[in-house]
Formats: sequence, structure tokens, C-alpha cells
Amino acid sequence: MDFHLVHNWKGKVKIGGKYLGKEKIFIAGPCSIESREQAMIIAKEVKKSGASAFRGGVFKPRTSPYSFQGLGKAGLKILADVREKTGLPIVTEVMDTRDVKLVSECADVLQIGARNMQNFSLLKEAGKSDSAILLKRGLSATIEEWLLSAEYILKEGNCNVILCERGIRTFEKYTRNTFDVSAIAVAKTLTKLPVIGDPSHAAGRKDIIIPLSKAALAAGADGLMIEVHNDPENALSDKEQALTPQDFAWLMKEVKG
Amino acid sequence: MDFHLVHNWKGKVKIGGKYLGKEKIFIAGPCSIESREQAMIIAKEVKKSGASAFRGGVFKPRTSPYSFQGLGKAGLKILADVREKTGLPIVTEVMDTRDVKLVSECADVLQIGARNMQNFSLLKEAGKSDSAILLKRGLSATIEEWLLSAEYILKEGNCNVILCERGIRTFEKYTRNTFDVSAIAVAKTLTKLPVIGDPSHAAGRKDIIIPLSKAALAAGADGLMIEVHNDPENALSDKEQALTPQDFAWLMKEVKG
Amino acid sequence: MDFHLVHNWKGKVKIGGKYLGKEKIFIAGPCSIESREQAMIIAKEVKKSGASAFRGGVFKPRTSPYSFQGLGKAGLKILADVREKTGLPIVTEVMDTRDVKLVSECADVLQIGARNMQNFSLLKEAGKSDSAILLKRGLSATIEEWLLSAEYILKEGNCNVILCERGIRTFEKYTRNTFDVSAIAVAKTLTKLPVIGDPSHAAGRKDIIIPLSKAALAAGADGLMIEVHNDPENALSDKEQALTPQDFAWLMKEVKG
Amino acid sequence: MDFHLVHNWKGKVKIGGKYLGKEKIFIAGPCSIESREQAMIIAKEVKKSGASAFRGGVFKPRTSPYSFQGLGKAGLKILADVREKTGLPIVTEVMDTRDVKLVSECADVLQIGARNMQNFSLLKEAGKSDSAILLKRGLSATIEEWLLSAEYILKEGNCNVILCERGIRTFEKYTRNTFDVSAIAVAKTLTKLPVIGDPSHAAGRKDIIIPLSKAALAAGADGLMIEVHNDPENALSDKEQALTPQDFAWLMKEVKG
Repeated sequence: MDFHLVHNWKGKVKIGGKYLGKEKIFIAGPCSIESREQAMIIAKEVKKSGASAFRGGVFKPRTSPYSFQGLGKAGLKILADVREKTGLPIVTEVMDTRDVKLVSECADVLQIGARNMQNFSLLKEAGKSDSAILLKRGLSATIEEWLLSAEYILKEGNCNVILCERGIRTFEKYTRNTFDVSAIAVAKTLTKLPVIGDPSHAAGRKDIIIPLSKAALAAGADGLMIEVHNDPENALSDKEQALTPQDFAWLMKEVKG
Repeated sequence: MDFHLVHNWKGKVKIGGKYLGKEKIFIAGPCSIESREQAMIIAKEVKKSGASAFRGGVFKPRTSPYSFQGLGKAGLKILADVREKTGLPIVTEVMDTRDVKLVSECADVLQIGARNMQNFSLLKEAGKSDSAILLKRGLSATIEEWLLSAEYILKEGNCNVILCERGIRTFEKYTRNTFDVSAIAVAKTLTKLPVIGDPSHAAGRKDIIIPLSKAALAAGADGLMIEVHNDPENALSDKEQALTPQDFAWLMKEVKG
Repeated sequence: MDFHLVHNWKGKVKIGGKYLGKEKIFIAGPCSIESREQAMIIAKEVKKSGASAFRGGVFKPRTSPYSFQGLGKAGLKILADVREKTGLPIVTEVMDTRDVKLVSECADVLQIGARNMQNFSLLKEAGKSDSAILLKRGLSATIEEWLLSAEYILKEGNCNVILCERGIRTFEKYTRNTFDVSAIAVAKTLTKLPVIGDPSHAAGRKDIIIPLSKAALAAGADGLMIEVHNDPENALSDKEQALTPQDFAWLMKEVKG
Repeated sequence: MDFHLVHNWKGKVKIGGKYLGKEKIFIAGPCSIESREQAMIIAKEVKKSGASAFRGGVFKPRTSPYSFQGLGKAGLKILADVREKTGLPIVTEVMDTRDVKLVSECADVLQIGARNMQNFSLLKEAGKSDSAILLKRGLSATIEEWLLSAEYILKEGNCNVILCERGIRTFEKYTRNTFDVSAIAVAKTLTKLPVIGDPSHAAGRKDIIIPLSKAALAAGADGLMIEVHNDPENALSDKEQALTPQDFAWLMKEVKG
């Protein structure tokens, strides 16, 4: 199985290409955008600690239709403001082919979530966008399937693809998913695309985010995506795993030290 | 966790409601529609053996963008013809929110595939359709997640949902996936929605389709979906598991006997 | 991969060989032998309902060293009594190579549990015994590994091997393990050894034992192993899944009907 | 669930207790001892590169009874010689309760393999030995089960237990098993026992051993176990994953640098 190699693309965010391997990227922010105030506080804090980009969900894929579904379009406006005020590039998820254009206007990187890794219509639409695409690995996807999903985007002409490992589903109960560090090492032998890790979603608990972050980077990851919330106890989603801005500052010191 | 109960819906196809438990349903046909001739031959044969509906894919979700992707809109016309000529209700997959309306015109039952089980935009759009929806279980989805995905459709007002177990991903190599008969038995304790089994996709080999079909029905399944091809050796997809029309006639005799 | 075929062995219990396929076998009894009285009550009841053999553990493999470990040798005496009083063949687990001889004196069939499926020393010792051996599939063993473990027994000259599927470990939470009916169908294509199913351990809940039992037989199983307890609420182990003798009588009517 | 904490044990090999966290341990050697010459060459080489102990199997647990089963007792004599000549402590697997004493005479650390993680008779016998015990995690064992198996050894009074993560079984095909770095991080939050990683068995391929080794240490592992062979092409077992002595020297430089 041969995969396309991407040597020298230039995205709005400088992640891959000639930058690859020189500087690690750190994407940080809350699972969901809850308010302008919350977003702004977190963005300023993570920037101070050295984050390269701000992430925050406004279209939220939730297992149950009765859970909080995100702020939607109102959230996009907040993201645009965060970008303007902080200068941080924005990473946010898009779930619907019909929203790709709209989200692209406020975001630098469109995230395609684990559940949509084989939503081929969405992948093709993302391939037609000029935004960079962060492609999460499906929670039981093989590495080959993950790379072939990236291929759907590349085939449309968009080579700004960042691969993101976010945990696989296993039988283990002490963590939400099993963070598959090995997949990062394997993917780096198969593709020139940047590969980052998201230990927050994988672990589902905050006390092991730092060792998992170090492990991902040690295995060759080009960066990390970390959930940060100013008030984790009262977060509308994923509160068990969100770091406080202080925790995140500590993490940054640890992984850079 | 409470799920909506559906007692007496009436779809274009009579599967659930007052019909539920009285008569098993048998959906048969090729993985992909390849030509008008192929579709017509298979449809007539499976009808003769007692099939309740004809299935055939025209929008094919393929792991690689370089594999055969289906006939697309041209295939829909063939399906409409098959319906007219044979009187069999049509089951076919829809992958894109923007195609729901179009596919609905030629199909009685819209299939949502395993990879799209948590494509929530597609689920919502299907919920707005007046077609029945066949919701395949994701290949590593828990039973709870599967039922919650059905809930996305029900919440929009479409209660004509058929659940379909199609195998889960495990470590086993003698079969493509592990046909989870147990999930059928469990689902029947949790919902009034009809639950059917698709042993063809699960097994990925034809020699055990009959015992697996019997097992699914014995576990309480309300029907089966079976891949049938007039020339399996030359099928454009999934040739290892397709039964010939003769095999299918034999299966029907076995499960009804 | 070729497996030895066993055409006409004769064990103390008539399960395989020329009997195979003519009559299904039903092994029933409690997870653990708790007292002479308990064992005798259950044995008489299951015999009345048509059980072919009595099962009951005296050496119990428990995940924690602090859980009830079984009655040990004292339990073996109870089993010998049950055999004498009821005439039922006895199935019981052996965990230690040094106990094979001793257990063989009181039991007709030595069970090798899922956790010991690749305890090769134990398999070899069992292969030297003249008892029949019931080999449970390991909870994440491939079908090939299961058959190769049987081969360790066959290689020593003991061909009285019964294979038993008892559920595999997956991500599902509504059942303890996933009862792999498909493995029964596959194993029947690969070996002449009898293959039975143990839905009780797999399900970990009693309400789906009957549909799973029917499914196993429909898939080709040569018999079933079912947990039965006279007072499930107060059982020392596995109380969630034990049927009462009345439930078992009902199950027997259902699967034979 | 509470686990016993082990603060200051002293084994023949200084791994845990007051040494824990001060110095990482590196156990290296071939999968199987094939000859005195082979063992001696490898042992001298890995010692030169800084290995803390020599590993080599003489009782080999093989899936098929027709595969090479190890040199057995003859191999033990070779191991004793290696210890005498090189001064390196010896790690080797024991599979049978009846061999524990014998193996203990030639080995400093008894390895209990993944397949025997829940062979409770063997665990108890190991608990009565005065050797240190290296307990591999079963290939589908939860972290809780792994720690409870260690508890079987601790309960008998032997607190010199080293936990070893060696990969879990998943659906992935690019690696033999999935090296579960996350389990190392979690185990370190639950027990004071030393936890090491075995990336060789997990990966089943040599090209990612270095990144996985770094990742394990970054996640908090107290050491590594690495397969090294002087002539991997002609190794009698596991040749795909064995490093040459030169590769191992490079690995040591990388992880210590």
C-alpha cells in the first residue's frame, strides 16, 4: 500500500512541510466553546504558556441527541473574535458537508472527528477547502484505514492534512480509550504528513496527561492537542479530562524541558 | 437509559409495528449495482425464493478513494426500474445529507452504513425523510451507542427505523468481522424497533452464511439481509461472501423449514 | 493449517465420535460447589429436565486471591457422591498439573478454563489423562489458537476433547463478554471435535440465556453448558447469570421443542 | 480496589525499592537460547552496551505443539554459565509449577509469560520462591487483573515483583500487538511495584523499537526488556523483531542520551 507523500505544502498554519520536525505544535483549548468570556480567558492563558493554536468545539458530535450539542454558528463568531484578539490560529470541528465553507471562514484548521473518519462525503468536501484539515483517527480504525481516509482529502488537492491519534477502543476500564502511542510511531514510518497526539480524549482523566504527552512526543509525534478549561468542574462536556490553565503551563514546561 | 418505544408505525415497507414478529423479512441482492441486467437477474431470482426486498448499493463507502465507488445516480435509475418490474421494495445506502431526498425517490428504505452510524448530520436528515431507515451498527459501536444513534432519527419524527447488526471488529482472522448474535438478543430486550442481522458482511466468507442466518433468527432477529450475486467470481465488490441465487434459495428453505 | 481429525473416539461420556450430531449434550450445574446439599438438589433437578452431565467447580480460578477459591478436595468428594447418587457424568475444572490425576478419579470430564487455554503444561498433562477434556476458548483467543491448544492434548494421545466457546472480551458493557456464536460455526468447518457453547459465562446475565442457547445450537453447536443454581441470589459466585432449576427446565423445553 | 504497596524490598537484582526511579533497568537477550555460543556472544555484547540483565528463554510457550519448544534443562545450564562468565543477572521464563525450584537455581528473575498471567497455581508457586518475579501482562488483561495477578504472588510473601507491559491484542495489523504505553502510566499511579515495557514482543517488527522504547520511558517505565540476537535472520523464534547487538548499542545511546 503506497501513500502520497507531502513534502512541501504551506498551510495557513505552518505545521508540516519545511517546518516539520523543527518545532512541535501545541493546540490547546476547551472541548466546547461555552461563552465568549470562557473562550477568551482560556485562549489568553494558553497563549501565554506557549500554545501554537486554539481549539474549541462549536458543532459537537454527541452520542446522545439529548446532550449539549454546542453553540453552533454563534460559537463561530466567538472563535473569529478569539483569533482577532489573540492572533492564535483556530482549530474547530466540522460535521456537515454543508458547513465546510462557513466554518472555513472562521477557522484555520478544520477538525474531522473520530466518528467521521470514514464519512467520505465530508472528507471530499474538506479536500476542496483551502483550510488545513486535522483528521482524527477513528476509534477502531486501523492505521491503514486512517491513512486511506487522509487520501480522500489529498486526492481532492488539499495536502494540508494533520493526522491526530486520539485513543482506540479496547476492553480497558481505567481509561476511556487506550492512547495508541505505537500508532504514532508506525504512522511516522508511512507518511510525511504531520502526526500529533490527543491524550486528553484518550485518557478521559487528567492525572496521566503529562506522561502520555511526553510518551507521544518521544514516539515521534509532531505535536499535541490538549483540552484546557478555566473551570473544569463546571465544563459542559468532558470535565474529567480538562486541565486548568495552570496545569497546562506545567505540562508545557515538562514537555519542553 | 430509556429508549423510545415504537409500537405502531407504518412504513412503506411493512416491517415493524403490528407486523413485527409475525413474519420475518429477507432483504437480498448484490453489494453493488453493476448494470441493469445484473440487477434485474438477481432481483427476479431472489423474489422467486421469497425475498421481501431487494438491496443494492449505488453510493459505495469504500476504504480507499481508488476503489470502485458505485454507479451513483445512474444506479438509482436502475433501482427504480427493478422496483417497477418486480414490485420488490428497494433498500439502498445513502452517504451524503444532500442526497437523502434524491435517494428517497427511488428507495423504500434508506440504509445508513456502519461507518456513518455516528454521522449525526446524516441521521438528522434521515429523520426528516418519510422513508424507512435501516441503521447498521458501527463496527465497534456499543449497543447503547447504536440505540442512541437511532434516537437521532426518531427525535426528528421518523419512527420507521430498522436496526441491523453487521459484525464487530475483533482480533479474529478467520472471519472479516465477528457477527454479534448476542447483540441481537440484547437489543430485543431494549427496544421495540425491528432488529435484523447481516451475516454476509460480518463473515466475509460464504460457507458459514447459513448457520449464522439460523443463529440470528434463533436469537430473535426479525429478519436478515443477505448478499446475492449472479456471478460472484466477477463481482466488483465483496465477492468472497456473495451467495449465488441457488445458494440463496437453499438458505431460504433452510431458515423457513 | 491442518488439524487432526477425530472420527471415532470413545470417552467415558459419549459425546463425540459416532454419537456426534445424533444427540445434543446439555451440561448443567452451579458455578461453584458450595455444599453437598446444594449440589445434590441441583443435580437431581437438572437430571429431571434432561441434563446429560453435571458441572460444578471445586478449584475456582478467581481474578483476585481474596475471592472464594472453591471447596478444593472436599468438593471432589461431593462430586463423587453426586455421580454415584444420580448417575450423571461429572464435569469439573482442573487448574494445576499436580491435580490432574486426583480430579480424574472423581470426574468424567476435566475442564480446562479460559485462563488456562494456553497453559501448555496443563494441556500436556491433560493429554496423558484418560478422562475427556473440555477445553474452553481463551477470552481473546483466535479460533486457530484454540484449535492448536486442543492439539497439545491430542498430541499426547487423548482424543476425547470437547471444545467450548464461552465468550470473548470486547468493548461491550451490556454483557460480560460477547458470546461468539460465529466461532462455533467456523470451528465446525475446521475440526471433527465436538463444539459446545457456554452462554451463561458469556452473557453474565440470565435474561438472554435462552435466545443465546438457541442461537448456539442453530449455528451448529453439539451441546450447551448452562449454569444452574437452586438459590441464585445467594450463590457464592456468578449469581447474576445462574438459572434456577425451573428456568433450566424451561430452557430445555425451548431448545428441544 | 486497593493494592499492596511495596516500599523497600531487596531482590537479588536491585530493581525496585530504594533503587526505584534512580536507575532504569535494561534487560536484553534473545527470545530463545539456541546454543552456548549464541548466548555467550549476545550476553557479552549487551553487557558492553550497558544492559543490566540477560534474558533468554529455555522453556518456550508456543501456540503450536509442533513449533520449537526451547532447549529445556540443557538451556538452564547455559544460562548458569552466562551468569558466571558475565556477572549479568539472568531472567528466564518458567511455565510449570514443578519447574519453579529448578529454574530458580539458575535464574535471578523468573518470568511469568503473558499466557500464564492468570495461571494461579504458577503464581502461587512463584510467590513461594525467593527469586524476583517478572510478571508479563496478559494480552487482553485489564490493568486491574494484572495487578490482582501480582497480588497472588505478593500474598505468598514474595514482594520482588516486576510488572511488564508487552502489548495488547487489538484489530491492528501493522504491528503484532499494540504496545500499551498508557497502561504503564496508569499502573504507576496504582502501585509502587516497578513497571517495565517490552516493545519487542508488542511491535513484532524492529523498525519502531527505538521510538517505542523512548515512549515507554517517557511514560514512566522503570526499564525495558529488549530482544537482541546476533543473527536475527536465522533466529529460531521471533526473528522479525530482534535487534542486532549493534542496534541495541544504538538504542541504549538513544534512550540514555
